[in-house]
Amino acid sequence: MFDDITTPTLLLDEAVCRSNIRRMAEKARQCNLLLRPHMKTPQSVEVGRWLRDYGIEAITVSSFRMAEYFAADGWADITVAFPVNIREMGTIKRLSERIRLNVTVENVEGARALQEQLRQSVMVWVKINIGNNRTGLLPNDTARIDTLLDYLAKAGRLQFCGFMGHAGQSYADRGQAAIAQTHQTSLSAMQALRERYQARFPQLKISVGDTPTASVMDNFPGVDEIRPGNFLFYDLMQWQIGACSIQDIAVAMACPVVARHPDRSEIVLYGGAVHFSKDYLTFPDGKPFYGLAAKRGENGWELLHPKAYLRKLSQEHGVLWLPKDLIADIEIGSLMMVLPVHSCLTANLMKAYRLMDGRTIGMMLT
Amino acid sequence: MFDDITTPTLLLDEAVCRSNIRRMAEKARQCNLLLRPHMKTPQSVEVGRWLRDYGIEAITVSSFRMAEYFAADGWADITVAFPVNIREMGTIKRLSERIRLNVTVENVEGARALQEQLRQSVMVWVKINIGNNRTGLLPNDTARIDTLLDYLAKAGRLQFCGFMGHAGQSYADRGQAAIAQTHQTSLSAMQALRERYQARFPQLKISVGDTPTASVMDNFPGVDEIRPGNFLFYDLMQWQIGACSIQDIAVAMACPVVARHPDRSEIVLYGGAVHFSKDYLTFPDGKPFYGLAAKRGENGWELLHPKAYLRKLSQEHGVLWLPKDLIADIEIGSLMMVLPVHSCLTANLMKAYRLMDGRTIGMMLT
Repeated sequence: MFDDITTPTLLLDEAVCRSNIRRMAEKARQCNLLLRPHMKTPQSVEVGRWLRDYGIEAITVSSFRMAEYFAADGWADITVAFPVNIREMGTIKRLSERIRLNVTVENVEGARALQEQLRQSVMVWVKINIGNNRTGLLPNDTARIDTLLDYLAKAGRLQFCGFMGHAGQSYADRGQAAIAQTHQTSLSAMQALRERYQARFPQLKISVGDTPTASVMDNFPGVDEIRPGNFLFYDLMQWQIGACSIQDIAVAMACPVVARHPDRSEIVLYGGAVHFSKDYLTFPDGKPFYGLAAKRGENGWELLHPKAYLRKLSQEHGVLWLPKDLIADIEIGSLMMVLPVHSCLTANLMKAYRLMDGRTIGMMLT
Repeated sequence: MFDDITTPTLLLDEAVCRSNIRRMAEKARQCNLLLRPHMKTPQSVEVGRWLRDYGIEAITVSSFRMAEYFAADGWADITVAFPVNIREMGTIKRLSERIRLNVTVENVEGARALQEQLRQSVMVWVKINIGNNRTGLLPNDTARIDTLLDYLAKAGRLQFCGFMGHAGQSYADRGQAAIAQTHQTSLSAMQALRERYQARFPQLKISVGDTPTASVMDNFPGVDEIRPGNFLFYDLMQWQIGACSIQDIAVAMACPVVARHPDRSEIVLYGGAVHFSKDYLTFPDGKPFYGLAAKRGENGWELLHPKAYLRKLSQEHGVLWLPKDLIADIEIGSLMMVLPVHSCLTANLMKAYRLMDGRTIGMMLT
């Protein structure tokens, strides 16, 4: 099945990915939410076309370049969930004349550049920091929010849509109770903003979007739209958080075995930091790992062994620890399957997917 | 000078890079070593052409694909410093018919595949684990070394060249004394092998090659060839190890400023894990950092402030902490320069360099 694979290859199980899409689309329908998946995870128009089979018409991306890539494949309603970079006004102008473009602002400088330099109107979301402390206005900083909304209200080309947040702090959660706590805290902040500003902006919407809360929660009070991305593929990080099972993980790396070291119970894979990325998780004892060995099961991937882990990555080498009794069966030149810690960064490095039927599908290139 | 930069851009100071090449080439000449730079760092034929100006005729790469990329630009003596991946025999065959190809083996399976499937002869280096514990035969495991050398001696297409090692444990060293200790230990292991096998293989050579020892040491007893790569650009990791100064760092990222958070003394950059990689260093207090802010000095880069650091990276966002008095001067839409922690991984993600005169030079693409 994988005989023609010669170098590290990112395998994508379309059936698992479609099942992830179907489940999230059903939940969104039941909760009356618009599902606007974040395409920074797959970065692939082919995967984008699968979404359309589940009624999805709108997407999120993380850069204007990525918006252009998907717009060229017919997506007409795209949100760039990143504080507007005013150095890219040329690209923004082109996009705004072509599609329904949603941009993210969190300061008057960004809003002013859009208002003064665009010819078409754009949808504007105000970025709120709902606990991630990456970026956005603090929900209780109503002075700065008021100033920005006052500017937007007067800016003819900028149509204020509502508040956007990303509860990325959920990536530090482990288990359903912790995720539920993050969900509640971040949505409360959004609810308070809605109550404060709804009289002035009756149409305002609330958009949130991290994979852990979108996967685990069934109730999204006060939310109009969710923007998860990683759920398309999931990965070991989401599994450790408690947002998915191993069988929900749609991607795995196939890595040639190039060396065996039975004395230390390790093998060396062709598959390193330029394939997996250096993102890691830790075992309960604090030891880091960069991936876990896998095998094909009946419905997707299974762990080869709970502790068969990528111990170390250098640029092209991956050192995989395995229990001694498993090493004996592994031949030089065979393929070892490895589930990635962070599928978004692995996909970004690999730039292509191999489907289980042998076809290769492309991604956005640099 | 950087007005036309719109998105995260990797700047390369050719003068600094050439000065790094010149210094290493002079040292190699003085020590009677062949300098065979590792091109996994720049992955660029244009940078490769600079090497030729300093008399360099042979290079190292980390994959057969990279060997093909450089062979197409006229390099005729290339070492692939990675345990031979026998699934790539088609590429190896093509290369062996075209250039002087040096491959790395550490097991009979790899050697046998080469012997049985190639038509042309190849140079073979035996990989020794000189303390890095990544891969290679242990220097005192003479039973396995003997078995492999016995096979090579009989294999007509395989020309045994000598022993190759990489003292990558030097990356954990801090300061000259620690690096000197690593250097001595790893070279002693190689010396012992030379003494043991020289009578049988009088031409055997010793090749080593990590940037810290190659940069700091001036004496390479018993060594014939060095293969450093990172020295071409250096980075914050080498600076922290003590292998270079800040002014020796040839690359920096130019990142648009998209948000300001004076309340927490931070700004947000367009520049994240898909630009820098997730490799990090730690301050003495254990706090991680993913880059340090920089400015142009008279002869290359200088730190903007010793503690102005990239605190957090997500896929496209970088959160940079700065002292409060510096924040006031920073405008939305301006560019912030950031020195990378690990230039090899940053370059691998960026796929192009912008020189200080505005020209862009390419890299090997996926």
